[in-house]
Amino acid sequence: MKIVIIGAGAMGCLFGGYLSRNNEVILLDSYEPQINAINQNGINIIELDGSENNYSNVKAYKSGEYKDIADLIIVFVKSTFSESALESNKELFGPNTLVMTLQNGAGNDRLIAKYVAEENVIIGTTKHNAINVGSATSKHGGSGKTTIGSNFQDNANLITVKEIFDESGLEVEITEDIQRIIWSKLFINLSVNTFTAITRSPIGSMIDNKYAWDFAEKMICEAVNVAEADGEHFSYREVLNTVHQLCVDAGNGYSSMSQDVMNCRLTEIDAINGAIVKQARLYNVPVPYNELIVDLIHAIEGSYKYQNKS
Amino acid sequence: MKIVIIGAGAMGCLFGGYLSRNNEVILLDSYEPQINAINQNGINIIELDGSENNYSNVKAYKSGEYKDIADLIIVFVKSTFSESALESNKELFGPNTLVMTLQNGAGNDRLIAKYVAEENVIIGTTKHNAINVGSATSKHGGSGKTTIGSNFQDNANLITVKEIFDESGLEVEITEDIQRIIWSKLFINLSVNTFTAITRSPIGSMIDNKYAWDFAEKMICEAVNVAEADGEHFSYREVLNTVHQLCVDAGNGYSSMSQDVMNCRLTEIDAINGAIVKQARLYNVPVPYNELIVDLIHAIEGSYKYQNKS
Repeated sequence: MKIVIIGAGAMGCLFGGYLSRNNEVILLDSYEPQINAINQNGINIIELDGSENNYSNVKAYKSGEYKDIADLIIVFVKSTFSESALESNKELFGPNTLVMTLQNGAGNDRLIAKYVAEENVIIGTTKHNAINVGSATSKHGGSGKTTIGSNFQDNANLITVKEIFDESGLEVEITEDIQRIIWSKLFINLSVNTFTAITRSPIGSMIDNKYAWDFAEKMICEAVNVAEADGEHFSYREVLNTVHQLCVDAGNGYSSMSQDVMNCRLTEIDAINGAIVKQARLYNVPVPYNELIVDLIHAIEGSYKYQNKS
Repeated sequence: MKIVIIGAGAMGCLFGGYLSRNNEVILLDSYEPQINAINQNGINIIELDGSENNYSNVKAYKSGEYKDIADLIIVFVKSTFSESALESNKELFGPNTLVMTLQNGAGNDRLIAKYVAEENVIIGTTKHNAINVGSATSKHGGSGKTTIGSNFQDNANLITVKEIFDESGLEVEITEDIQRIIWSKLFINLSVNTFTAITRSPIGSMIDNKYAWDFAEKMICEAVNVAEADGEHFSYREVLNTVHQLCVDAGNGYSSMSQDVMNCRLTEIDAINGAIVKQARLYNVPVPYNELIVDLIHAIEGSYKYQNKS
């Protein structure tokens, strides 16, 4: 199978490397040094046990410069850049091309459905994580299932994708409830990410004091109301308990958005809380807390010029 | 007149120094080195033109340790500490003692009215500003009128205070609309202070981009609704124009709350946005934005332990 991965960061390289065991893998990115590193030395993956594997059966191109129709496209760019990444690579889409998103946030599937038929859109979320340690080398921090689904019922394409991934050592589980799983992940991200970005503190800080947890409750309960309007019922209490437990478990870890803010990078706020606000408008559900936080995070992005970078 | 100033910081020393020209001035504080510096060397005030004046006709005591009834008490502590400062110095209050607050925020007058009759409470706001440059030395950054008023109509005590201040070189204006002036100052503080504290940026940043100004509009319009319920009508447009102009004029300055956050100190959030939320509850006015920001600023205070102080 010809698999094109858009976004050759830590996660793109991780999945690209694994999938290259049994498939033709092409990676697209806009960052030239990463493209050159992949073409010269292949992808290196450092596993949790310290072992290092090289995957040289891969090719990398600058985004927009590879133009053959793909069998499977995996979108791994930050959701902020999805639209431009899809637009500049639209020659990759044929009538049978499957497109998979494993991105954070909500609404990535809707964006992809502008380019391919609904049954060709594969929505997923993965427990794998990886960090980029330079020159096409990914440090594989944690493993786990990748859960995929579709908005199209009884979609045989899910089985095709599962087989390819399973063969390459990436365990896949098919769910009929992918939107529910995406919502659950969103409840975490919309509270934990924004809170830790604003306070510049680790994930566990959201249960440090009553003000922090009040913030979380306000943000999450609004989003549960939006999910309800969208047809997915969640219990406030159960969702809050799940997020609370995550804060206990992930205590000292730093969220991606807090790292973005501390390093003065653009965040994924529009795909997370921004997506909630957008859907809330469709159903006329009041979401003042999430609206204010979208403003604030964008304003924080606008204030990077005042920050002392040491 | 025996004048006791509670809070011998930059502003307490500025007013204490000036008033000591014609009055007996006693300063109370909880910070021993400041008390000792005042008693050993008097108060030094560095004026804008560079000239330095020493005022040695003052005495300082640890808060709670001076017990003579005062003619006039001026409360200059951060409003966060008002209650404990008043409580530990309640032996200073006699039946004729006037008590003046020049503190930030709303509700300081209500707190003082627990200790003296309403006509003895003088509410004010001043255009003077000063910073503490160490060992009882205040740098007088800007001068201007001090505006005072009372919740008690035709209050002769205002004239008494005006005469004392005017004689000492502190220009005072009496207003019948002190609550309106306090509200106007609050609209600025509740938006500018919180925004610049969260983004760690100068005052002008609140008009840098549409997200920042959206934040300001949301916060201010809620507070205007609370003022309306409390009997003070303001036009949204006029208030927003005033705050916008302040952001232009004060562009590169840093608000007190942003300095508090950057230096990991407790803020005055409860006297500013917290006071709005409290009053909103009395009148059942919805103030979700201000509620969320009170949570967030307190959560930021709670996150100081994670900040790297260099």
